[in-house]
Amino acid sequence: MQNVPYSHRISQVAPSAIREILKVTQDPTVISFAAGNPATESFPAGEFSAIIDRILRESPGSALQYGISEGYAPLRENLKSYLKSKYGIGRDFDDTIIVTGGQQGIEMTAKTLLNDGDTLVCEEPSFLGALNAFRSYDAVLKSAPVEKDGMDLERLEAILKEDKRVKLVYVIPTFQNPSGRVMSLEKRKGLLSLAEKYHFMILEDNPYYDLRYEGEPVPTIKNMDDKGYVVYCGSFSKVLAPGIRVGYVTAPDWMIAKLTVAKQLSDVHTNLLMQMTVDRYMREIGLDRHIEDILRINVRKRDLMLAALEENCHGFMDIERPFGGLFIWAVLPEGYDGTRLCRIAGSYKVAAVPGASFCVDDAKPYPAIRLNFSLPTAEQIEKGCALLGKACEAYRKEV
Amino acid sequence: MQNVPYSHRISQVAPSAIREILKVTQDPTVISFAAGNPATESFPAGEFSAIIDRILRESPGSALQYGISEGYAPLRENLKSYLKSKYGIGRDFDDTIIVTGGQQGIEMTAKTLLNDGDTLVCEEPSFLGALNAFRSYDAVLKSAPVEKDGMDLERLEAILKEDKRVKLVYVIPTFQNPSGRVMSLEKRKGLLSLAEKYHFMILEDNPYYDLRYEGEPVPTIKNMDDKGYVVYCGSFSKVLAPGIRVGYVTAPDWMIAKLTVAKQLSDVHTNLLMQMTVDRYMREIGLDRHIEDILRINVRKRDLMLAALEENCHGFMDIERPFGGLFIWAVLPEGYDGTRLCRIAGSYKVAAVPGASFCVDDAKPYPAIRLNFSLPTAEQIEKGCALLGKACEAYRKEV
Repeated sequence: MQNVPYSHRISQVAPSAIREILKVTQDPTVISFAAGNPATESFPAGEFSAIIDRILRESPGSALQYGISEGYAPLRENLKSYLKSKYGIGRDFDDTIIVTGGQQGIEMTAKTLLNDGDTLVCEEPSFLGALNAFRSYDAVLKSAPVEKDGMDLERLEAILKEDKRVKLVYVIPTFQNPSGRVMSLEKRKGLLSLAEKYHFMILEDNPYYDLRYEGEPVPTIKNMDDKGYVVYCGSFSKVLAPGIRVGYVTAPDWMIAKLTVAKQLSDVHTNLLMQMTVDRYMREIGLDRHIEDILRINVRKRDLMLAALEENCHGFMDIERPFGGLFIWAVLPEGYDGTRLCRIAGSYKVAAVPGASFCVDDAKPYPAIRLNFSLPTAEQIEKGCALLGKACEAYRKEV
Repeated sequence: MQNVPYSHRISQVAPSAIREILKVTQDPTVISFAAGNPATESFPAGEFSAIIDRILRESPGSALQYGISEGYAPLRENLKSYLKSKYGIGRDFDDTIIVTGGQQGIEMTAKTLLNDGDTLVCEEPSFLGALNAFRSYDAVLKSAPVEKDGMDLERLEAILKEDKRVKLVYVIPTFQNPSGRVMSLEKRKGLLSLAEKYHFMILEDNPYYDLRYEGEPVPTIKNMDDKGYVVYCGSFSKVLAPGIRVGYVTAPDWMIAKLTVAKQLSDVHTNLLMQMTVDRYMREIGLDRHIEDILRINVRKRDLMLAALEENCHGFMDIERPFGGLFIWAVLPEGYDGTRLCRIAGSYKVAAVPGASFCVDDAKPYPAIRLNFSLPTAEQIEKGCALLGKACEAYRKEV
């Protein structure tokens, strides 16, 4: 049957500029800085294999049978102590559920809280996957700009004053995607105060926190959440491997109860063998040692890309030096558009993501692009930045 | 923050009688016939371990890195030929997407097609997990009874005549959950004709098809779908293992395109290591040999339970002999309620699921219970059926 009207919610999620760019990356001769992938060489494949072999010998039944929607109990307990002792996350009223990657935590939070027409405020720019999940529940999306020290709280409060239907504020306070910026401690406290004053929930998405290459850690918002306003999404994608699809949500227990219902409907439970593997990895090897390995790999690539951009694109783009995460945010001069630059870059066989893709209104020109430094090799970084330099040159001549 | 109004959609999914029953099964002294689990002893743990070890040695990068939302390309191709050659499923206009278990296929189909207030017609009784997924998208649920040869199509057509908003009809035509019944070939054709006449989509949920213990196979509805009215959900949960959470959807390509968008929002992609494992298992070992092993295990348990029920509950319940699947459907005499029987059974330390749990209106008494024979051991089957016999006796005295 053709011409079935899709649901309104799925029609909301229109193909965006990012798809066009990602098509460019299908060409194997294109160097891609468009990904959001961690460094492939950092994955602990050998340790995983040994752990999986033991699990399948020792408890084949429980590893391959149905599990409960809340997640594998030992991993949940393990994770709760880890979050508590390392980050001060989790009060008596909080609980933790295992999800199939951070994206599912975001999607289920939207499903659980948002009614059609409720307002969600995000940072601008922000993570496209989350924005599309919110769109798919017919939320009204509004945004406040990400300043150098994080979300513009004055703009947020102006929205809160005029719109009584703000139910959720979505932030990536640490090494924000795509900007790489970090929200200051003062603003984190300020956001929490606004939540108490205007009675909305905060969705703190925190996949990059451990990937800090310099500077002092800033506490998470969840760390300061004494009253249960924060739903916290974490992920093993950037500290172990994304292909395993294991993440978690820590939130007040009444919220976890509803997320468990949503989880049951979504996919019953997260892959059990992978949950058990993560649990054993944390207990027997520990994340900390592995995170050090990742940092060593990533900081080298970041510095290489910063140097190559400085060499090739200097004077055209304002290259921000990220203290952590996976991305470099490059701001174009007034009057230039990131989408146009990415198109030109594509013709030079290098791919980046236009800033507009991360905006609520993604059709509007936006003078920035996002560059990923964790996935490409050193050689690709150098070659790709040289090509990007040529694309900048070509764009400059065009305007 | 307390007292946040949840979304309407998640509030639709009320805790049901089944939860109360499942609580009973937490008690380790209770024998559970309440599960939907395959036989634990059938899982190919050794083969999985060997395959995973090879994958992680040969291609650690691609197994642990992000994958594409449509699924691992070799598995998709492999599966398409398998479905085509073995079941005649898949036309030129069809495509296949890998999902995180059959439940996700159902949930994403609902998300993609149903607007608030659209009508979904299901069989009564039907699979609770699917009904809750439909409820969570604010669909209006209507039902047509499952007769011995499948859904009552006269009742369905009466609904179609009076309700112009029927967009989707959900059926489990083969070894239906919970009734174990099989829709006749004639009714399968009839349902497809109604879809063409009244312009609705059919969601064919088919996790049990290969688990046939006797009788001749009946073609799937998708096998006869020349015009693209059928969304077909399959799963590896019952032919390999449910803990790995790998299933698939075969549907017209325009529908797969939208499901891919929904998949991207839900969990980005299905666990890649498990997709690769299933792919290699199918290519190197083959599902057919393994399915024979499962059939050997299951048919023995089915026959054991049928005999034990005959011995202990005869004259009270009408025990239907299922030709396949995982469940025995036991119908109580007029005036008796399955929910009450399950409560009494719980006090005798044996658990079953009341028929009402599988109904659109699950508060209404329903004179049947569902018994699972694949998970319990032979000893548990015999002991549990004896206890169930006592519960029947107690209930009979009560009325």
